[in-house]
Parts: sequence; C-alpha cells; structure tokens
Amino acid sequence: MIIVMGTPGAGKSTVLGEASKDRKEWTVVNYGDLMVDIAKEKKLVSSRDELRKLSVANQRTIQAAVGDKLSKMGGKVILDTHCSINTPQGYYPGLPNSLLAKLRVDALVLVNAPLEDILGRRKSDTARVRDAQVREELAEHIRINEAMLAAYSVLSGAPVLIIDNANGKLDVAVERLEALLGSFKA
Amino acid sequence: MIIVMGTPGAGKSTVLGEASKDRKEWTVVNYGDLMVDIAKEKKLVSSRDELRKLSVANQRTIQAAVGDKLSKMGGKVILDTHCSINTPQGYYPGLPNSLLAKLRVDALVLVNAPLEDILGRRKSDTARVRDAQVREELAEHIRINEAMLAAYSVLSGAPVLIIDNANGKLDVAVERLEALLGSFKA
Amino acid sequence: MIIVMGTPGAGKSTVLGEASKDRKEWTVVNYGDLMVDIAKEKKLVSSRDELRKLSVANQRTIQAAVGDKLSKMGGKVILDTHCSINTPQGYYPGLPNSLLAKLRVDALVLVNAPLEDILGRRKSDTARVRDAQVREELAEHIRINEAMLAAYSVLSGAPVLIIDNANGKLDVAVERLEALLGSFKA
Repeated sequence: MIIVMGTPGAGKSTVLGEASKDRKEWTVVNYGDLMVDIAKEKKLVSSRDELRKLSVANQRTIQAAVGDKLSKMGGKVILDTHCSINTPQGYYPGLPNSLLAKLRVDALVLVNAPLEDILGRRKSDTARVRDAQVREELAEHIRINEAMLAAYSVLSGAPVLIIDNANGKLDVAVERLEALLGSFKA
Repeated sequence: MIIVMGTPGAGKSTVLGEASKDRKEWTVVNYGDLMVDIAKEKKLVSSRDELRKLSVANQRTIQAAVGDKLSKMGGKVILDTHCSINTPQGYYPGLPNSLLAKLRVDALVLVNAPLEDILGRRKSDTARVRDAQVREELAEHIRINEAMLAAYSVLSGAPVLIIDNANGKLDVAVERLEALLGSFKA
Repeated sequence: MIIVMGTPGAGKSTVLGEASKDRKEWTVVNYGDLMVDIAKEKKLVSSRDELRKLSVANQRTIQAAVGDKLSKMGGKVILDTHCSINTPQGYYPGLPNSLLAKLRVDALVLVNAPLEDILGRRKSDTARVRDAQVREELAEHIRINEAMLAAYSVLSGAPVLIIDNANGKLDVAVERLEALLGSFKA
C-alpha cells in the first residue's frame, strides 16, 4: 500500500489522478469516502456532512472499522488521505498510530507546492484581507505536515517522498509519482 | 486531558493562568510539581533542586509513578509540562512514549512566540554577548518542539494547537486556549 | 548506547573519529558494516554492493538480525548510522521503530552543518549545474532528518543533540561529542 497525502491546495487530486489513470493495477481508495460508506452502513449518518457532527466515540468506531477494512485489502492500493486536518481544535493527524499500526505501508507520499503557489490557487477574499496571517498559518500547516510525515515514516518504516507540484511543473510532479508506482513490481 | 506545553519564554504560564482562572471545572496539574511530590513521598529527595541529581534509574521510577498517577485522574485535567527540555545532553522529550502511552490525551497545545519576542523577554547578559548563537539555539529549540509535538500527536491521535503569544497579543492567545477548553463539553 | 547520525557531507565520520579515538571504553559499531557482515554470514551477498539489490523481504530479515545483535551488545556502544537515507523512493528512516524498539538508547546525536558548507564540501559537477534544486533537496533532507530525530527521541525517551560541524569549527563539534560521551559514566 502506498499512501498519498497533500497540503490543501497543493494539487494532490490532480497529480494522483494523472499518475494513476493508466495504471489499472492500482486501486485508489479515498479515506473520506470509505468513512462515509462505513458510517452509512452502520446507520450513523445519511450524508457526508453529518460525519463532522458525530461524537468522538462514534468517529473512533468508524476509524477503527476503516482501518480494519484497509488492512484486509489485497493487491496494489493507493490510499488517498490527509496528512493532517486543520480544525479549530488544531491539526489532527491523518494517520494516527492506532490506524497506521494496522497497515502495511510501502511508501508515504506528500504532495506539496510552494507557499505562494498554494495561496494563489486558493485566492479567497479572506486570504487577501488577512494576508500575513493566512501566509503564516499555511507555513505552519506545511511544517506540521512534514513533521507528522516523518513520524509516520519512523513508525511504519516506509520511505517518505515529498513531491513538489509547483505552478507549471505538473508534468514533473506526475512523473515522480509514476516512477514511484512503477518501482513497486508485483 | 489536555496537555499544555511551551517554549521557555513564550509565556505559557501566563496564558494558561488567564485561560483557566475562571474555569474551575478544569484541574491544572504541573508535571514538575507532581514529580517533586512523588519523589518526596518515596524519600528520594527533600527539595526540588535534588531532582536533577537523581540517578537515571530513580528518575525513571518517578516518571513511571507520575504517569500512573496521571492515568488515574478523572475529570477535566490540564497537564502543564515541557514540550522538550534543553540540557547539556540534548533535548529530552517532555512526553516520551513510555509516558504518553499511559494517558488519554484529547488535545496537545504548544504556546509559542516569535523568536525576537522571546529573546527580548529573556534579555540576559549572555544573550547580548553571544547574540547569534543564542538566536540559533532558540530557533533550533522551537523546531525540535514542533517536531516532537507532531510525534506526540501521531502517537496519541490528539490534535495539536500552536498558540502564538506575540508581544501585545496576550488576549488573542488566551482566547484561543479558552475556545479550546470550551470545546470540550463534559 | 549512543546513536550518532549525520546528514551526508556534514562530517559525521570525522567528528566521531576524533571524539572516540582516545576513548577506548566505547565500541563504535557501523550499522552498514554490521548489515554486510550478517548478510554474508547468511550467504545472501558476497559484497556490500549486492545489499541494495536484495529483495525487501531479505533486507528486513537482515535488519531484524542486526537489531537482535545490537540489542545484545553490552558495554558502551556508539552506533554509527544514517538518520535517513535518500533514495529514489524517498527518505528511509535509519531507525524505524521496528529497530528502535529493540535498543536501549541513552542519547541520539545528529551531526549537521550549515547548508552552504555541505554544498561546498560536495562540490560535484551536478551540484554546480542544477544549483537551486540541489540546495532545495539538501534543505529538505536536513528538515526531514530533524523531524525523524524528534520522533526517535519521543519513541525512545532519549535526548537529541544536534552538533553543528561548521567549516573551521571541527574542534567545537568534537568537544561537544566528547562532553556527551564523558557524561555517561559507567
């Protein structure tokens, strides 16, 4: 299993979509989608929006079920998830050890992009008004993502690849991910 | 349990004191005080200063006892401790996994401040004389604190909140911690 | 056991050689050498170059055997290894938790040097041609090393010491490591 994560705005979905589209031997699994599916099965939610409103206890139950499901998947799997999730309570790790310990991870990928490129892609009004603060928060998120990534690597033993998806360099980013996928022969 | 840590000089005590003073449902426990209490009970020391002189074996015994005590505390607890401790042997983690694994952590908070603000608050003679070196060491300490914080988060699954206590912005820092405390309803 | 790691080009071998040469009570063990020895014993390779070509399964078997051997070593041991290893698949952790959990680590040392000093020492043609990219990659490697170091510390409870081996300051770097070695009395 390869886990692909990204800083929001770094273009993870585009890079992952391009790199995996002609590689049908890989199954791309989106962590969020899997959570919604399992929560629906358990009759805990009827839509994705309700996930956030679940109690912490129920969220943990679903996460444990997701981990169990992922641990049983065979074949070549790309797990598409967050490195960390920025919430009012702080950054939640996308791969807490309780989940990570269940998985056999072969590689950890973080799709990143230069801070200015990400800010340009977001171009929200809020970003323009409170520019310096938004810039600082994004820089902090990138630092926390890298530090969590290192911890995931130490815990799992899997290597970490940081792919820079700078403006105008999508092809280079896609090539790096393709090369990684290609390095895992059956 | 919420764990509040801080880079020395960042003003953790002030922020924590202000945020918790009117919130009597939270018990603030200082890790260092707890160590002294337990070491005294065990007749290993008669004062705080003697803690540092204990053998590593005795320190580990006390730390284990502190962990056991903390793991049994009920109710809403704020643990006030160091993110890392700078010693001649290097930075010791304030929450080594041997301790962290015993606790049920709901949030990890690091009180930080801009490097120049911290240096200004310290204003020791040494800092003035060896300015560049002191600045570099502090920057290193802040980086190590953030990286350890990320590891604590991955191991515990708890989110990390970095609160910036810049000069003249104490009220903002206090509000952020108050908001976090308020988000944990019984 | 003390573990000494270094960013390539930071001068770990020189600092370690100088600091340990008159301290015969310390046994310096090179992780890579130990891997080769064990792989040869197991008839898996006949030379160091063949190590890289081994299957992942065989590499894991050897790493486990190295861990077992290290965990049984008595006396004062300095383990000389990589903090992380830069490969086309990404940065592999030098001390994955599967290895780290077997060791009783008393201190973690990272020998670092200013980015420009390391680049100057490498002075390869490639570095001159693609200067900006090489600089960025090295900065990334240094950040990942520090973040992994912090994770090693949190998992093992051992302190981390970052020794700066800047140009012209080898004596200061050696003194710091000597002081650390001297602080561990039998």
